Amino acid sequence: MKQAKFIVVEGLEGAGKSTAINAVLDVLKQAGIESIRHTREPGGTVLAEKLRELVKQEHEGEVLQDMTELLMMYASRVQLVENVIKPALAQGTWVVGDRHDMSSQAYQGGGRQIPRKTMQALRETTLGEFKPDFTLYLDLDPRVGLERARGRGELDRIEKMDMSFFDRTRERYLEIAASDDSIVVINAEQAMEKVAEDIQNALKQWLDTK
Amino acid sequence: MKQAKFIVVEGLEGAGKSTAINAVLDVLKQAGIESIRHTREPGGTVLAEKLRELVKQEHEGEVLQDMTELLMMYASRVQLVENVIKPALAQGTWVVGDRHDMSSQAYQGGGRQIPRKTMQALRETTLGEFKPDFTLYLDLDPRVGLERARGRGELDRIEKMDMSFFDRTRERYLEIAASDDSIVVINAEQAMEKVAEDIQNALKQWLDTK
Repeated sequence: MKQAKFIVVEGLEGAGKSTAINAVLDVLKQAGIESIRHTREPGGTVLAEKLRELVKQEHEGEVLQDMTELLMMYASRVQLVENVIKPALAQGTWVVGDRHDMSSQAYQGGGRQIPRKTMQALRETTLGEFKPDFTLYLDLDPRVGLERARGRGELDRIEKMDMSFFDRTRERYLEIAASDDSIVVINAEQAMEKVAEDIQNALKQWLDTK
Repeated sequence: MKQAKFIVVEGLEGAGKSTAINAVLDVLKQAGIESIRHTREPGGTVLAEKLRELVKQEHEGEVLQDMTELLMMYASRVQLVENVIKPALAQGTWVVGDRHDMSSQAYQGGGRQIPRKTMQALRETTLGEFKPDFTLYLDLDPRVGLERARGRGELDRIEKMDMSFFDRTRERYLEIAASDDSIVVINAEQAMEKVAEDIQNALKQWLDTK
C-alpha cells in the first residue's frame, strides 16, 4: 500500500473545485485507495468552522484588517492540520483538501498585497515544513469564475472585492505554481468534462510515480 | 497638552488589574487628562470580543492548539490596535489597556513555552514597532492570585492550567519587565491600598517626565 498523501484542489471562486474534488476522489478509489478524508479551508474542525463564519461575516461595520483575516486563516489552518490532516495521514488515510495554504498566499499575499516576507514568516512560523504532496490548481479568468459563482447565489465579503483583487490573486497563483513541481495547472475555462479529464490524467500520472 | 499615551496594566489572574486600572484613571483625571479610553484584551472590538469568546470556550472536546490560541490572540490584538487604540491616540485620547502584548509573551511564550523566536516573529509581523508607552506589571505569586480569582467564580480554560504554567508565566513577565525601562513592577501581594498607592506614585513619576 502506498503511503497516504495530502492532495489539494485550489482555484478562484467558480473555478469548479467541487467537481474537481469528485474527479480526484474517483481516481483515488479506482486506484484502490479506500480510506480518504475530504477537508475544506477555512474550516474543517469545530473551531475552524467558527473562525470561517467570523471571517465571512460582517461585524457591525467594523473593518476587518487584512492582517486579522490572515491570522484567522492560519488559526483555522493550524487546527485542521494538527487535529485532522496530520493524524489522518499518520493512520494511512489520504486527505483531499478544498483549498490550503496556497489560497492564503494567493488571496492575502497576491490579492490583498500583504508583503511576501510577512506571508513567508507566517507560514513558516505556523506550519513549518508541512505542505501538500500534490496540488491541482484550476486556472481561469476571474471574470469567468465570478460569473459562475454569482449564479449560485449571494456573494460573501471576499467575493465582493473588485476585479483587480482577483487578477492579482490569479497572478500569484500562477507564479507559485510555476515555482513548485508539486503543483499542476489545469485550464478551468474548458468544458467541465474536459477539466475533469485533465485532472484525472494529471493525478493518475502523479500516482504512477509514487 | 501632553501627547496622548497608551498605558497598560498587566499581571496574572487575581493580581488586581481592575483596581489598578481605577487607580490609573484617577491619576490621569487628577492630571487634567479628560479624554481617556479603557480597553481590554483579548477583546475590545466587536470581532475581537467574538474571538475572546472562542478562545475561552470549549469546542466539543477539540484540542485548541497553542499556536491557534496565539494566532487568535494576535488577530484580536490587531483589530483593537488598528481600529481602536491607534485612532484614539491620533485624536488625543489616552488609552488605558487591561492587558496587551506582554500577556501573550508571558502566557503563550512563557506559560505554553512557544519558542522565543516564534513569539518575536509574530509580534513583529503583526504589530511592527507599536508598543505601550508605559506598563504597570502587578507581580504576585500565582498561588495568591488564583486563590483570589477562585473567590470570583468559575475558572476558564486558561485559569484551569496547572501551577507550573503560571510559575513560568510569572517568570517571563519578570524577565520582560527587567529588560524594558517602560515597565514598572508593582508588588501586588501587598494590601490593596498600598498597591494602589504604589501604582499612583509610579504613574505620577512617569507623567512628570513626559
